[in-house]
Amino acid sequence: MTRLVDQHCTPLPPGTPCLPESQWQALLQEINPAWQVIDGQRLERTCHLPGFDAGLALVNRIGALARAQDHHPELLLAWGRVRISLWTHSVGGLSLNDFILAAHIDRLAP
Amino acid sequence: MTRLVDQHCTPLPPGTPCLPESQWQALLQEINPAWQVIDGQRLERTCHLPGFDAGLALVNRIGALARAQDHHPELLLAWGRVRISLWTHSVGGLSLNDFILAAHIDRLAP
Repeated sequence: MTRLVDQHCTPLPPGTPCLPESQWQALLQEINPAWQVIDGQRLERTCHLPGFDAGLALVNRIGALARAQDHHPELLLAWGRVRISLWTHSVGGLSLNDFILAAHIDRLAP
Repeated sequence: MTRLVDQHCTPLPPGTPCLPESQWQALLQEINPAWQVIDGQRLERTCHLPGFDAGLALVNRIGALARAQDHHPELLLAWGRVRISLWTHSVGGLSLNDFILAAHIDRLAP
């Protein structure tokens, strides 16, 4: 199977369902253990950083990744931390794209 | 009285109390009406923007302001919006610094 980090987010055909728990549980094993699935619907990870500017730099690195993958996270930037939340609006929950983006984020997050 | 936007955030002496409601209600009149005080403890404004990159650009402009003022907001960046939250950790609520930073943010937020 192709590793998540070697995949690219792709447009999902209309009507694509969100991932069932058995699938997201399996995908969760392939990304940093700091990621958690919340309410079965979104994928979250909080990165702790020294101060505000280091967090802003991470937000920019993730922003560049989001542009390249055309899949966009929600990012909460506060002094000392960045919380990353991923879900797929069009499926009303989690899709493979969320896990692909998470794997790419893991390569640049501390 | 010096306008908020002509003031600079300053370090607060230890033991400085948070602003009482009468004071923050008065200060609220001096900033964009989109700002709301939540639970008497924090100041919030949400800016709506076209897409993700415009929001990321706003986050960077606010980040530069936060560095210059040495007062740091919490910023939630999502597709189409940026939520700005301000409070002052050391006083356990709102301080004049929050309103000064809000007035500066108003000059660059849409």
